[in-house]
Amino acid sequence: MSLARFSLNQATIKCADLPTAVRATVDAGIPAIGLWREPVAEFGLTASAAAVRDAGLRVSSLCRGGFFTVPEGRARRAASDDNRRALDEAAVLGAPTLVLVAGGLPEGSRDLVGARSRVVEALGELAPHARQVGVTLAIEALHPMYVSDRAVVSTLGQALDLAAPFTPEEVGVVVDTFHVWWDPALREQIARAGRERRIASYQVCDWMMPIASDPLLSRGIPGDGCIDFATITEWVRAAGYRRDVECEIFRQEIWDADAFEVANRVADAYERLIAEHV
Amino acid sequence: MSLARFSLNQATIKCADLPTAVRATVDAGIPAIGLWREPVAEFGLTASAAAVRDAGLRVSSLCRGGFFTVPEGRARRAASDDNRRALDEAAVLGAPTLVLVAGGLPEGSRDLVGARSRVVEALGELAPHARQVGVTLAIEALHPMYVSDRAVVSTLGQALDLAAPFTPEEVGVVVDTFHVWWDPALREQIARAGRERRIASYQVCDWMMPIASDPLLSRGIPGDGCIDFATITEWVRAAGYRRDVECEIFRQEIWDADAFEVANRVADAYERLIAEHV
Repeated sequence: MSLARFSLNQATIKCADLPTAVRATVDAGIPAIGLWREPVAEFGLTASAAAVRDAGLRVSSLCRGGFFTVPEGRARRAASDDNRRALDEAAVLGAPTLVLVAGGLPEGSRDLVGARSRVVEALGELAPHARQVGVTLAIEALHPMYVSDRAVVSTLGQALDLAAPFTPEEVGVVVDTFHVWWDPALREQIARAGRERRIASYQVCDWMMPIASDPLLSRGIPGDGCIDFATITEWVRAAGYRRDVECEIFRQEIWDADAFEVANRVADAYERLIAEHV
Repeated sequence: MSLARFSLNQATIKCADLPTAVRATVDAGIPAIGLWREPVAEFGLTASAAAVRDAGLRVSSLCRGGFFTVPEGRARRAASDDNRRALDEAAVLGAPTLVLVAGGLPEGSRDLVGARSRVVEALGELAPHARQVGVTLAIEALHPMYVSDRAVVSTLGQALDLAAPFTPEEVGVVVDTFHVWWDPALREQIARAGRERRIASYQVCDWMMPIASDPLLSRGIPGDGCIDFATITEWVRAAGYRRDVECEIFRQEIWDADAFEVANRVADAYERLIAEHV
């Protein structure tokens, strides 16, 4: 099986700096990489863009913008400026997509309906800049267990509703198996996402039990957990998705392992479980 | 504000035996109780029914049946027999409703679609017995973080789809705030549940952060967590719900506290936050 459409998200080898991440990706025969803003900033934006380009890697996405749910005021203006900068960085890096994490309930608030409505407004503010720099804003639905502290966007259907007022070039969605695999409406919403040309990124990552004491770190390498990757990947293929398939894992034992070894392990999992279904 | 429609679910004072639970409920001025099969069996079914009746309490529900997802075979037949017994017990206790937890993925399985389809079959098997004994099977959607190990029914919409082939007297749904508060489709699905006359039980319980190391125990007393009870309760009222509002909390520090004190605390929370909205 081929790695032709596989991409290693940099968060999977979080402890590696950018040049090491690039080398580990190339070394494992992976043709694309998903970048994060923090390690890119650390190595320098222009230097990072050059390092990735010189290594012959595609950039599948940049993580991440968002955090849209704070009420109007200084913090919100700062977030808005930062999101514009993130779009500019994505353009410099050649990333087609900026992944957005919506943000949770503001401190002390219980107004989930209100927080969700602020996401709509923030997208409206950012979309013109996204169009201008040629980068798609990709709304990522996060698992409902993160709704209060991370992301008030909880289902693929909700993400598609949020994207609806914009063109697919301006606003798309991320399908991340870890976050959406449980959804009884998943098949139908992936098909809808295809019809509406909204799938900007497909990310693969397994659901591990028991849930980690830090629930952010409950993710695992495909095949190690509960998710049926063949079925979901076939749904994504049937929806017409033809871009890179990113593997993004947050897990302490994987972060503790050698980056080169991890790159090989995830590439192997992709070849065994996913490649034939993409 | 009045406790007239409040019910204390016995799991909230898990360490109390049945007579103590009854006394704590009466003592707090709460007119109804939600029972669990295990403490009822321990005290004896007939004795429990008499104790509750003699105390002048309504029984709002019996917990629980379900565990429908094992493949056909001996375990599944045993589950089916046990569910029929649970319906009989509910009838003896005067409980209008048997709460159902669907069950998770069978050991080693990744076939979520298949597990879900077995829930449909199991309901079809049980519905005639439910009708016969005059007890409504109430499908409870559990939070998506429990999909692999507890319940493959994850949203109110999915529960309503499962109930659709049956009459509302045979099969209804539970709306438990802890499990469904995050759902972007909640308002719309509660309204639908009302139109379809499916709300068999409304349960109130807060979402506490951080998620407990045993995620089952992340529940809290209304007001202690992130949920907007006024809004959700108004939606449930607008849907025409007029039965008891149960408070069911799994939380170690609450189980460790005195049952009489806990009954008073939850009654107080109900009066402050929920009573005026029911």
